Amino acid sequence: MEPIALDITYAHADVIGEHGVSDSELDALAERGAQALEAVEGRRATDLRWMDLPYQEEVLRSVQAYAARVAGRFENVVVLGIGGSALGPRALHAALNGPYHDLAPPEGVPRLFVLDNVDPELIDAFLQTFDPATCLFNVISKSGSTAETMSQFLILRRRLIEALGREKHREHLVITTDARAGTLRPIVQEEGYDSFVVPDGVGGRFSVLSPVGLLSAALVGIDTPALCAGAARMDERCRTPKLRDNPALMYAALQWLMQSKGGKNIAVTFSYSQRLALLGDWYAQLLAESIGKKHARDGSIVHAGPTPVRAVGVTDQHSQVQLYTEGPFDKWFTFLSVATPAADVVIPSDFADRDALAYLGGHTLGELFAAERDGTRIALCDAGRPSVTIEFPRVEASSVGQYLYLMELSVALMGEFYGVDAFDQPGVEGGKVAAYALMGRKGYEERRAELEAGAPPRKPRIR
Amino acid sequence: MEPIALDITYAHADVIGEHGVSDSELDALAERGAQALEAVEGRRATDLRWMDLPYQEEVLRSVQAYAARVAGRFENVVVLGIGGSALGPRALHAALNGPYHDLAPPEGVPRLFVLDNVDPELIDAFLQTFDPATCLFNVISKSGSTAETMSQFLILRRRLIEALGREKHREHLVITTDARAGTLRPIVQEEGYDSFVVPDGVGGRFSVLSPVGLLSAALVGIDTPALCAGAARMDERCRTPKLRDNPALMYAALQWLMQSKGGKNIAVTFSYSQRLALLGDWYAQLLAESIGKKHARDGSIVHAGPTPVRAVGVTDQHSQVQLYTEGPFDKWFTFLSVATPAADVVIPSDFADRDALAYLGGHTLGELFAAERDGTRIALCDAGRPSVTIEFPRVEASSVGQYLYLMELSVALMGEFYGVDAFDQPGVEGGKVAAYALMGRKGYEERRAELEAGAPPRKPRIR
Repeated sequence: MEPIALDITYAHADVIGEHGVSDSELDALAERGAQALEAVEGRRATDLRWMDLPYQEEVLRSVQAYAARVAGRFENVVVLGIGGSALGPRALHAALNGPYHDLAPPEGVPRLFVLDNVDPELIDAFLQTFDPATCLFNVISKSGSTAETMSQFLILRRRLIEALGREKHREHLVITTDARAGTLRPIVQEEGYDSFVVPDGVGGRFSVLSPVGLLSAALVGIDTPALCAGAARMDERCRTPKLRDNPALMYAALQWLMQSKGGKNIAVTFSYSQRLALLGDWYAQLLAESIGKKHARDGSIVHAGPTPVRAVGVTDQHSQVQLYTEGPFDKWFTFLSVATPAADVVIPSDFADRDALAYLGGHTLGELFAAERDGTRIALCDAGRPSVTIEFPRVEASSVGQYLYLMELSVALMGEFYGVDAFDQPGVEGGKVAAYALMGRKGYEERRAELEAGAPPRKPRIR
Repeated sequence: MEPIALDITYAHADVIGEHGVSDSELDALAERGAQALEAVEGRRATDLRWMDLPYQEEVLRSVQAYAARVAGRFENVVVLGIGGSALGPRALHAALNGPYHDLAPPEGVPRLFVLDNVDPELIDAFLQTFDPATCLFNVISKSGSTAETMSQFLILRRRLIEALGREKHREHLVITTDARAGTLRPIVQEEGYDSFVVPDGVGGRFSVLSPVGLLSAALVGIDTPALCAGAARMDERCRTPKLRDNPALMYAALQWLMQSKGGKNIAVTFSYSQRLALLGDWYAQLLAESIGKKHARDGSIVHAGPTPVRAVGVTDQHSQVQLYTEGPFDKWFTFLSVATPAADVVIPSDFADRDALAYLGGHTLGELFAAERDGTRIALCDAGRPSVTIEFPRVEASSVGQYLYLMELSVALMGEFYGVDAFDQPGVEGGKVAAYALMGRKGYEERRAELEAGAPPRKPRIR
C-alpha cells in the first residue's frame, strides 16, 4: 500500500516567512506532542474505541455478508442520518464512486442518497421522485432519539408499510444503532429489522469506520477492507512520538501553532480533487465539533476553535483565491492533491494561431490541473500564506482510509494541544432544547414558557 | 410580488448584548451610508452596468427565443464556465428546479450540469457518462482566455466534430462572450456558432442576470422574466438613502460594523432551505472577490475582507453549531428562511409510547424544520452571537431575483464602507501567471525560469 504523504514545505518559516512555523517552534512542541500522543493512546482500550475500528474484522465480515445478501435487490440505498451519520457515507461515495455514479450506476450497483435534512421541500421531492419499494433505508442513530432521523424513519416506515404491507416492509429497513440502549434497539427487536451496532466509545464524528460508514459503503461496492487496511496502516505510522515522523502529530501541532501563535482562526481544506472534496465536509464536522469549545478541561473559559472552510481547486481559484492571497492573514491551508489521477484527457491543438489557446493544445487536463494547483500554492506562498499538502498516491479506498484515520487521530491530538475535551459537544444542547420546547415535547414545558415570555421585541423588519 | 424581508432583531445590541450593533452605531453610519449609495448609484450609467441588468427586456426576449427554438432537442445542458460563469447557473438551477431534477427531469426539460473544474477525473467521468450528441454546451467566458473553460471547449468541440461532423456540431454549442473583443468572438464568427453577449461593465460575479445566468436558466425552464422582475423590485426598494428602510444599505452597514467594530472576520450564510443553499456559494464568491483586498482605494495596505462560510440548516446543526455557539466570537450569521414551503409532510404518530418519538407524531416536517431554525437562532442569541434573517416568502424566481440584487448592491456598498475597489480582482493574477509559466505559455518564459530557479528546498515529506 502506498502511503499518503504530508509535505510541510510551504508552512515553514524558512520558505514563507513570518506566517510560517520555524524549526525551533516545532522543536519546542516535541515533548508536549509526545505527551499528547501518550494521553490519547492511553485511552485506546478504555473510552476511545474508535481507535480500534480499523481492526474489527468480524464487523467488516458481517457488513460484507449483509451487502452480499441484498446485492441486486435495491436500486437505491438511502441513508437516514445526520451529522456524523451522514458526512462519512456521503464523502466515501463521492470519493470512491465518482461524480456521476447516481446518474448512471454500474449494472447491479445501487445509487446512494443521504437524507441529512428535514427541509419539507427536500423530503417531499424525495417522496415524489422515488418509489420506496426500490429503496433500502439505512437508519442511523446511536440513541434513537435524533429528531431528524426519527421523523424520517416514521415517515418512510409508514410509506413502506402502505406500499408493501407489514411483513414485506421489513426488508427495506436496516438499522444502525446502539447495541442495547436507546429508542431504536427495542424497535429493532419488536419489528425484526436487520441491524448493526454503533459501538460504545465511538462518537458520531469518529464513526466512519464503524458500520455507520461501512454499511452504505459496502452496499455501493466500495472496498471496505481496503478502507480499514488504509486506516490501520496510518494508525501504525502514527505510533511514534517523534513529531517529525508522525503525520497526525505534525498536523495537530501545525494547527495549534497556526492559531495560538499565528492568530489564524480559519483552516481551509483546499481539495485539488473533485472526488476528495467532500472529505472536506467530513473533516469540517470533525474539527469544528471537537475543538470548538467554550471551556477548557480545567474549567476555564477559552472559546477555542478554528473554523473549517472547504474549497475545491481549481474551481475556487475563481471564487476564493482573491481573498486568500490578499485578505487578512487569518487562514492556513491544507491542499489535498492526487499524485496519479485515474484518467486523463488530452487537449486538442485547435485554433493554434490564438495566443490564449495555443499553449493549451497537446497538454493534458492533468497537466493543467497540476500547474494550477502548483501555481496557486506558489502564489499563496509569495503572499506569505502558509500551506501544507496531503498527497494521495491515487484516489482509492486504501488512501482514503489513511486520510480518515490521520485526521481523526490528529484532531484527538489537537484536543490535547488546545486543552479541550475533543469528544463532547455540549454546545448543541441549547438549540435542541429550544426546538423540543417549540415542538411541545414532554418535559420541556418550562423552557417553552420561558421562550414565549422572553421572546425579544422584534425590530422593524425591512421589507 | 411579495417582498423578501430583512430582520435584524438578533443582530441588535438590545437583544444579544455586546456583540450586537446599537442604534447609535447605526445612526452614526447613516450619513456615510447615504454617501455610499450615492457613489454607487452615480456609476450606474457609466461603469456599473450590472445595475441595469434587471431591465434588459431585449436580452430576456432573445434568451427566451433561443430556449424556445432548441426546446426538446437536448437531454442535457452543460455549462462550460468557472467562477461567476458557473456559480449563478448552478445556484438558480438548485433553487428553482429542486434537488432531484437531474435524476428525473420533467418531460421535455433538459438536465443541467456545470463543469467548473478541469480535474481530469471529473472530465473523464463526464465523457464516459454522457454522449456529447445529447448535450448542448454553453461556453461562457467574457475574454475567451479562461484556461479552464477554453480547454473544455477544445475537448468537447473536437468530440462533437468527431461524433457529428463539422456541419452538425455547431448546433451543440452556444457561446456567451464579449460582444467584440477577446478570443471567442472571432471564433463564433468564423464557425457560425449561436452566441450571447456578456456586456461591458458586468464583472463575472455580477453577471447572473446577464445571459451568463439567464441562458441556462431559460433552457431548464426557469421563469427568467420573474427573476429579473424580482431584481428590479429590489433595485427600486434600494433607492432610498435611509439606512433603516434600505435592506442593501443595512446589510452592508452590518457587515462593516461586525468586522470593523466587532472583529468578526467570518460571515456565515446559514440557509434553512436545501434549495437556497447554493446561493451561499454564489454569495461566497461575490463577497470574497469584492471585499478581499490588499489595498484600499487610497493605496494604503489594508488586507481587508470577511471570509464567507456556507452552512445548511438543519444539517449543520450536527456539524458546525457546536463551534458557532461555543467557539471564538469571530462570526456573524445570515439566516435564509422560507416563510411558506412549497410542500410539507406529516410525521406519523407511530410508537407513541416512546418519549423520544411521541412529540414528533402529528407535527409536520415543516414545523420541525421551523422549530429547529428558531431554536438555533435563539441558542446563538443566548450565546451572544449576532444574526440577521433574510426571509423569502416562497422559493420562487421572483424572490430569488430579489435576493440576488440585494446581495450585489449590498456588496457594492460594502466596497464603500471598507474603502476598497469592489470590482477588481488583482489577487488572482499571481496564480494564473505561475500556471501559465508552468504550462509553457508564450510570454511567460521569464516567470518559468524564476520558478525553476527559486523553488524552495523541500522539507522532508512525512510518509
